[in-house]
Amino acid sequence: MTTLLESYVAGHWFRADDDGDPLLDATTGDEVARICARGLDYAAMVTHAREVGGPAVRALTFHQRAKLLKTLAQHLNEHKPELYDLSLHTGATTRDTAVDVDGGIGTLFSYASKGVRELPNDTIVFDGALETLGQQGTFVGQHIYTSRPGVTVQINAFNFPVWGMLEKLAPAFLAGLPTIVKPASQTAYLAERAVRLIIASGILPPGSLQLVAGSAGSLLDELGVHDSVAFTGSAHTAGILRRHPHVLDAGVHLGVEADSLNCSVLGPDVTGSDPEFDLFVKGVVTEMTVKAGQKCTAIRRVIVPSLMAASVSDAIAERLAKVRVGDPRDPQVRMGALASIGQRDEVLKAVEALRAGAEVVFGDPSRPIGDARGAFVSPLLLRAHPGAPQPHEVEPFGPVSTVLTYESLDEAVALAARGRGSLAGSVITHSPEVARHLVLGLAPWHGRILVLDRDDARESTGHGSPLPMLVHGGPGRAGGGEELGGVRGVLGHLQRTAIQSSPDLLTAVTGRWTPGSTRITPEQHPFRYSLAELEIGHSISTAARTVTLDDIEHFAEFTGDTFYAHTDARAAQRNPLFGGIVAHGYLVVSLAAGLFVDPAPGPVLANFGVDGLRFLTPVKAGDAICVQLTVKQITPRNSADYGEVRWDAVVTNQNGDPVATYDVLTLVAKEAR
Amino acid sequence: MTTLLESYVAGHWFRADDDGDPLLDATTGDEVARICARGLDYAAMVTHAREVGGPAVRALTFHQRAKLLKTLAQHLNEHKPELYDLSLHTGATTRDTAVDVDGGIGTLFSYASKGVRELPNDTIVFDGALETLGQQGTFVGQHIYTSRPGVTVQINAFNFPVWGMLEKLAPAFLAGLPTIVKPASQTAYLAERAVRLIIASGILPPGSLQLVAGSAGSLLDELGVHDSVAFTGSAHTAGILRRHPHVLDAGVHLGVEADSLNCSVLGPDVTGSDPEFDLFVKGVVTEMTVKAGQKCTAIRRVIVPSLMAASVSDAIAERLAKVRVGDPRDPQVRMGALASIGQRDEVLKAVEALRAGAEVVFGDPSRPIGDARGAFVSPLLLRAHPGAPQPHEVEPFGPVSTVLTYESLDEAVALAARGRGSLAGSVITHSPEVARHLVLGLAPWHGRILVLDRDDARESTGHGSPLPMLVHGGPGRAGGGEELGGVRGVLGHLQRTAIQSSPDLLTAVTGRWTPGSTRITPEQHPFRYSLAELEIGHSISTAARTVTLDDIEHFAEFTGDTFYAHTDARAAQRNPLFGGIVAHGYLVVSLAAGLFVDPAPGPVLANFGVDGLRFLTPVKAGDAICVQLTVKQITPRNSADYGEVRWDAVVTNQNGDPVATYDVLTLVAKEAR
Repeated sequence: MTTLLESYVAGHWFRADDDGDPLLDATTGDEVARICARGLDYAAMVTHAREVGGPAVRALTFHQRAKLLKTLAQHLNEHKPELYDLSLHTGATTRDTAVDVDGGIGTLFSYASKGVRELPNDTIVFDGALETLGQQGTFVGQHIYTSRPGVTVQINAFNFPVWGMLEKLAPAFLAGLPTIVKPASQTAYLAERAVRLIIASGILPPGSLQLVAGSAGSLLDELGVHDSVAFTGSAHTAGILRRHPHVLDAGVHLGVEADSLNCSVLGPDVTGSDPEFDLFVKGVVTEMTVKAGQKCTAIRRVIVPSLMAASVSDAIAERLAKVRVGDPRDPQVRMGALASIGQRDEVLKAVEALRAGAEVVFGDPSRPIGDARGAFVSPLLLRAHPGAPQPHEVEPFGPVSTVLTYESLDEAVALAARGRGSLAGSVITHSPEVARHLVLGLAPWHGRILVLDRDDARESTGHGSPLPMLVHGGPGRAGGGEELGGVRGVLGHLQRTAIQSSPDLLTAVTGRWTPGSTRITPEQHPFRYSLAELEIGHSISTAARTVTLDDIEHFAEFTGDTFYAHTDARAAQRNPLFGGIVAHGYLVVSLAAGLFVDPAPGPVLANFGVDGLRFLTPVKAGDAICVQLTVKQITPRNSADYGEVRWDAVVTNQNGDPVATYDVLTLVAKEAR
Repeated sequence: MTTLLESYVAGHWFRADDDGDPLLDATTGDEVARICARGLDYAAMVTHAREVGGPAVRALTFHQRAKLLKTLAQHLNEHKPELYDLSLHTGATTRDTAVDVDGGIGTLFSYASKGVRELPNDTIVFDGALETLGQQGTFVGQHIYTSRPGVTVQINAFNFPVWGMLEKLAPAFLAGLPTIVKPASQTAYLAERAVRLIIASGILPPGSLQLVAGSAGSLLDELGVHDSVAFTGSAHTAGILRRHPHVLDAGVHLGVEADSLNCSVLGPDVTGSDPEFDLFVKGVVTEMTVKAGQKCTAIRRVIVPSLMAASVSDAIAERLAKVRVGDPRDPQVRMGALASIGQRDEVLKAVEALRAGAEVVFGDPSRPIGDARGAFVSPLLLRAHPGAPQPHEVEPFGPVSTVLTYESLDEAVALAARGRGSLAGSVITHSPEVARHLVLGLAPWHGRILVLDRDDARESTGHGSPLPMLVHGGPGRAGGGEELGGVRGVLGHLQRTAIQSSPDLLTAVTGRWTPGSTRITPEQHPFRYSLAELEIGHSISTAARTVTLDDIEHFAEFTGDTFYAHTDARAAQRNPLFGGIVAHGYLVVSLAAGLFVDPAPGPVLANFGVDGLRFLTPVKAGDAICVQLTVKQITPRNSADYGEVRWDAVVTNQNGDPVATYDVLTLVAKEAR
């Protein structure tokens, strides 16, 4: 008997008191491991996540969480070989495993990077701009995101045991949530190994990752408000989960990413001699054969202009004929086995259903391949009967695609829409008009659309590859969920709340200076304080400087910006917005810097940017301007001996009218040197 | 017999072939109208919305839709008196009706304004920044939002027949969706009148608004992917809707905004002599009595420090004793009737349940008030038994609140959390520390939190008022939905899609210039073209200008910005980022403007701002800089004879390194003058 997979529960590896069910090698039918979760204490698991894991993760800032993800990615990178070895049992070729293992590790790296670059070094996230709720400015609104004090449960599909786990773990961990992973049994030995590597590394805080090897049992019964279930799998299982009473009535968030009838559309501009023709054909064949077509994002519907149907089918068939199917341990093999005999039978059943509305134009479902105990299926290309419903309804989760034809762009869009919502679509065209028409028509039906042409082909990651920075999910049949998408995937785990407050208390709540709240005049010029000494609200109010006509004329001459509104009184008079000579906006902000800068060397190292500069009142000759500069946000960088300080800058004229508002971004040393 | 309310279906008013059920005046019990939808063709309604209304709305840009909302708001404003008259039948006082009618019209105005200021004059919305997907820049990603080709069905509560409809209509209409309104029967005569005013005005495109007066019948059975149901009402009805097969399996989006056990927390810093004490007491009394407490956002749980319980209860009771309850037609009356005898009985039943865990400290549920056929209830204040579950579980949808006590801030948060998710909470404190602790603790459990103190009290809109610019909704028991929130409410109706493409085709798809895509050098300088003539991608590549040490020194002297990195070679040498004298960032952008500006009068009227300026490579004396300025986005303003042009600016040095990148914002005349 092979090893019984263990679950990781409340800080310990749990072994069921049962021999478990066998998990078989997809190619040879040999037993790889056994699985059972009998006796697992699901309630203890959820309690541990809630009381130990959650608080531990949420005690860290987003940047600290991101750093742990990076360390974890590096650690897994060093242990890839053992994952690759195990992955062979799933029927995956080396190319397939790269998608799963390297794809998963790459997702960790991507989130580590996004977490530092796009989230604050804090535990809350701002959403949108400050809203002024009263005319006096004493009542303002700000949306913020905070972490839910909950647990997230992953229920993953069998096809990507590593990527599927890591692509859900990374955003959830960044969001401050502990994760309980329940991999699909068929390939759970690979997910279990990855979890063992993670746990053994000690990189993640205790309780932030637990594993159910086996049935999810009563796990969902333990969940409530603020807990979430992220499911990837069939529409059928999704329907069961949607009916769980805690999802229906107890506030459990359910995110679904289900297989869908994804399409790839060939533009009518593409002829057989265009490079896009080959790109299209290659794309279809790749999606049919990678992971033996067991991808939620694979192309199931090949939508082509009627006149191109024959040449496309022939070209696809020609390429498919060269695909060697067999044991993934054989380096000549391009396509391995399906994950199990059960999966193979499901695919063959779906093909039977499809054949009610389509003819097989390549491949023979009954052709025996390799070891009789292996879950092999030949790639199969079908051609749909006109108007047949089956290609839009039946999903063969294997190396099977169906060709459909259209006469007009609108018909192509209508065909795509018959899939009732997909994860990924692609449009292969080199025509700007075709791209716009098809993409905007397809967009409401898709979570992601690839536009492929000769220009991006070399760098394109292909139709079927979700990327960590892009949303993965889709409407309708695809489940209606959203994962990944960079920071979007993190925000999806957080609770958005509108805070209404006085500016001062909003500053206190958020830790970021709110316009309208108290300014603190420190003893010295704020440029004299290190990051450690600087406080939110530290401010300087400068003396005034009168802007003369000479200044304006000189600036025009010096910079070469002789725009008539600065140089030609008569023409400027006719400008509907100015009605006379005005100072350059760039002159105003340059003089403002002259007013607020403290020149001597000190902690302030550099001005690295300006955000949201708006010129509100024209400055005319004789106007006197002054500046208020206030510390708005302080962001230490974990990886450098300086951090970012965002300053609120308001330039006003002698009447107190705002002339310009903007944020000045500086780098400031952490400690005085 | 009174009038039978009619439905508005497919461009016609439909009258049921039935006498219908009577709707009674809340105060007098007299019949106001009758209601029935028997025979209504729900399928025709959905088809009409889908085939007529949707395409008509989506043919308009966001700005055009916003303008119609503004016109509609103005139209309804002129017809307020008839809505106020009808509203008396619902038991509402004039103050109550203002919340409903003026609140609804104000929401239209707010969305009209947000639609123009925060959405493009286009039909798609960009989400987030461009993602570089390949190192060569030939493969990029951009998330966009597009309109779903669907229908939205509103199922509204009885308490705000006008606001409830308009607050859902405004964001849905902006999002390009046709709306079918199904008001609660009890007050449907008021919603029907508002719909009649809207339809008669002819302002909205045909098919964009339809009305079901009566039962929703089989309406939901007609919905599918891309259709949505926005429900406001009880958690019980929400549970029924969640179980509808088209919600479970056909991709219908269901948004729920349910009543919740909202709390108001008094900070431990507040003493009886602080102004916050009175603000707290007034807030509770207002929320108990406005709409006779029939508000989803009303305060049901009054959470106070133990030591303050008696004085708070006394102060609330004292104020409640002065509240005159009765016929809203009587100007002395402060609180009117509940919406119906049925509602009154529900409230009394809930009070009975509450009394298992709380004592009545003010009010007498059995005291008769006004006309015996009127649905009156006296305001009731209860005090919870320690640890009792009822105040966290039972919602009396009327003028009823319960006082609970806490010993520590963490206990206050824990009590609030026992409500399992609320629409609105409030924290009354003047202490920054208390505000931060309570608000961040409460945030995950709330859609909106009001922080009230002496500083914002005068402008505060109060605990119970949703505002159009802030999110309305809440987790868990509150339904898990989100409405309003300005543009957020619009985006919630749109489909987000990640587009992967070459820069050129992304430009074609989105209509906005993508960095990396082709630049067009027009015959003249791009500043010579009017908005009508200017094209996306029009570009100018300037000559180079060498920045001399003299320039830097002169600029320092002229502007007063003598920061050492520009003026002191030895000190600049020690700067870890520069290692020597560098040009001011403001000098770089000023010289850049000198390079790209075309000075003569023409269509370009003004530079009104700069976005996202980042200094990437320091400019040293002797470096030669040049600029590429490219038309990125063109936004005509519907209300002016000019529009906004956003230019992509890239400043590079003699080595081609990017020195600065930013967007320049200009106003450009629509036509050459």
